[in-house]
Amino acid sequence: KTLHDTCTAWGQGTRWGTASTETGMKRLALSPEDGEVRRWLVAEAKKLGCEVTIDAMGNIFCVLAGRNAGTPTMMGSHLDTVPTGGRYDGILGVQAGLEVLRSIKDAGYIPNYPVGLVDWTNEEGARFPFSMVSSGVWAGEVDLERAYALADVHDKTKTISSCLDDIGFKGETECSYKAMPFKAHFELHIEQGPILEAAKQKVGIVQGVQAYNWFTVTVSGRPQHTGTTPFAARADSMLASARFIAKAHEIASAHDGLVSTGIFGVEPGAVNVLPETTQFSIDMRHVEDDELALIEAETWACLDKIVAATPGLSYTKEPIIRSPAVKFNQTCIDCVTKAAETAVGADLCRPMTSGAGHDSCYTSLRCPTTMIFVPSKGGISHNPVEYTSPEDCAIGAQVLLGAVVDFDSR
Amino acid sequence: KTLHDTCTAWGQGTRWGTASTETGMKRLALSPEDGEVRRWLVAEAKKLGCEVTIDAMGNIFCVLAGRNAGTPTMMGSHLDTVPTGGRYDGILGVQAGLEVLRSIKDAGYIPNYPVGLVDWTNEEGARFPFSMVSSGVWAGEVDLERAYALADVHDKTKTISSCLDDIGFKGETECSYKAMPFKAHFELHIEQGPILEAAKQKVGIVQGVQAYNWFTVTVSGRPQHTGTTPFAARADSMLASARFIAKAHEIASAHDGLVSTGIFGVEPGAVNVLPETTQFSIDMRHVEDDELALIEAETWACLDKIVAATPGLSYTKEPIIRSPAVKFNQTCIDCVTKAAETAVGADLCRPMTSGAGHDSCYTSLRCPTTMIFVPSKGGISHNPVEYTSPEDCAIGAQVLLGAVVDFDSR
Ligand SMILES: NC(=O)NCCC(=O)O
Ligand SMILES: NC(=O)NCCC(=O)O
Repeated sequence: KTLHDTCTAWGQGTRWGTASTETGMKRLALSPEDGEVRRWLVAEAKKLGCEVTIDAMGNIFCVLAGRNAGTPTMMGSHLDTVPTGGRYDGILGVQAGLEVLRSIKDAGYIPNYPVGLVDWTNEEGARFPFSMVSSGVWAGEVDLERAYALADVHDKTKTISSCLDDIGFKGETECSYKAMPFKAHFELHIEQGPILEAAKQKVGIVQGVQAYNWFTVTVSGRPQHTGTTPFAARADSMLASARFIAKAHEIASAHDGLVSTGIFGVEPGAVNVLPETTQFSIDMRHVEDDELALIEAETWACLDKIVAATPGLSYTKEPIIRSPAVKFNQTCIDCVTKAAETAVGADLCRPMTSGAGHDSCYTSLRCPTTMIFVPSKGGISHNPVEYTSPEDCAIGAQVLLGAVVDFDSR
Repeated sequence: KTLHDTCTAWGQGTRWGTASTETGMKRLALSPEDGEVRRWLVAEAKKLGCEVTIDAMGNIFCVLAGRNAGTPTMMGSHLDTVPTGGRYDGILGVQAGLEVLRSIKDAGYIPNYPVGLVDWTNEEGARFPFSMVSSGVWAGEVDLERAYALADVHDKTKTISSCLDDIGFKGETECSYKAMPFKAHFELHIEQGPILEAAKQKVGIVQGVQAYNWFTVTVSGRPQHTGTTPFAARADSMLASARFIAKAHEIASAHDGLVSTGIFGVEPGAVNVLPETTQFSIDMRHVEDDELALIEAETWACLDKIVAATPGLSYTKEPIIRSPAVKFNQTCIDCVTKAAETAVGADLCRPMTSGAGHDSCYTSLRCPTTMIFVPSKGGISHNPVEYTSPEDCAIGAQVLLGAVVDFDSR
């Protein structure tokens, strides 16, 4: 209920059904709506007696004291969404974390050590184009000044720094695992893929995250007339790009990896003019770093060959992100396994590798980390119709509670 | 000189060099600039003693009287350009026609029958998306009301009808080959392709125009996460479209025809989301209608197969234009051949089929018609760097003069 109420109040997006909860979300990082839901979160956490710390990247840490002082076992995810997002991606992890804190409080349970919740800023990278940037700064992997300078993709006059100021969330605390150390980080998240649903299972016990590399590829040719230019005289960037995308899929298949294109544009864009340039994204993934390196090498060799076959064609590739494979912590995994098997039985649990990057990738560099997945209807995510049933959300929250309490008591 | 002076004065576009003539053109149909160059043309024609008629589509007919009354032998092309056009496409044909009228006048030559020049409205279809629409109305192939209703692609509140009123070029005369019959139509045009340049020849004697069909294809799939969705669970519209474009090229090659894609867009367009839809243009051409029909049938069968292979994919295709093959008039071709061989010798002449559609396609339905091509540097057209040397422009004008005088005297 809290999840839906706050989604409806702050950043409701595209409607896809008639019920009040049947809308997507548009809550861009550091937007006014993000500011409002953040203030609400801070207020709720304070009501529970949490100590709330806001760091220089606007990450919000809400920590409930334990029997003993010490570094907190944290739960965390994000409240920002992509422009045409859904109600679950990230949001479920934060709201479930809050629910866990409420349950601990309601039950009068006092953990051994502090237990807390973190809302990470700009996980999506949709407004400021660098996903998981704030957990990256926290982990010491991304430079604060570089993060501050990231500009809104639609309004270059706004940066992370200026927008943190605008909504009043540029905190005093250094953004660093040294200033805010964690005993562990547990992240409940929707799967964003079809595997649990297809297997009719309920909980994914995440062993790690596959490696991924992103690039922007620009193929340049000649803007020739489609009617007057024989095939032999063409330098057709569109044809070369189409051949490449088809081939890259074959290469990835052969290695049991993934290569995908989600962005594709052409210039100048007229029916009877061959594109002078095509520009598109390439997203390559594999659970093993070595295999990803092979996919990458073969993919560029393939593009070299396609481009070299036609005089007048050339290409450039610009790396956007290189995210190596992540292996999560075995103790954390054990805690999730136990909690999940208790909640739904071993048959409904599945060890999984996350296909997508999460803030947990960065936290795993600095503290024991794992994740819990719950099913995504149709595997759809980053879309208004993204859906996880109330029952599955509750199972996820239950497993999160069990894992955190277990970890804290070890 | 007149060509460059009027290009510089009205609608000068992107600069590509330092000389005053080294710019492209942006003279959209019925824009204020188009209005000004039209007024200039009318004034120049009147200075020569032409009778000027403006029809309901704004087509401008400038006719010099002959020794006898009768239907005029016309020269024609267009003064409008695409947004990033060059100085020669269409413009050369009109300016050379004016130069022919001036030369006839200067020489004191009186043709047997009237000789004239026509500037066709909105040939490009760049502002109002229907190319050659006004010669189409003249030929009785396009409905006047449909043409009037065509809206500016960037401002739906403006139509051909309202813009004709705005610039004062909605004439009283019916737009029809019945109201304004021609004895013949000769069109000098740049080749817009690489053939003459590659063959080191100077004049293309155009035998006809290849057939072409245009479509907008929309492939729909599922907007899945690129990281979390295994290949087997995807309905990837981008991959299907890439495979299709590569295959369509093979089909066209096998038939000695052309298939091209100049427009390509994806939605929603994010690195880690498979496009839910791709939308792109398909432009198919062949010199023979029968062969084009085969290419079309095989192309759609190929797309059917690609789409059917993946559950969740579907597609639609919307026809934009179907332009059958055109065979030009042999007497007109003979006149051009004689004039061209006189001007540059037979070795520098080449019988050609036009790869692109022109107003001459429509006039050929209602009167003897042919075209004269001159070389395009690098085969480039619809681009600011479009270039035809002053010498080649002069050769084209000379051949136009010779052909018209010859036709008139037969
Ligand atoms: N969870 C998620 O969508 N992360 C963004 C980075 C990725 O595409 O893996
Ligand atoms: N000449 C020219 O570009 N005509 C437009 C129609 C076509 O692409 O053939």
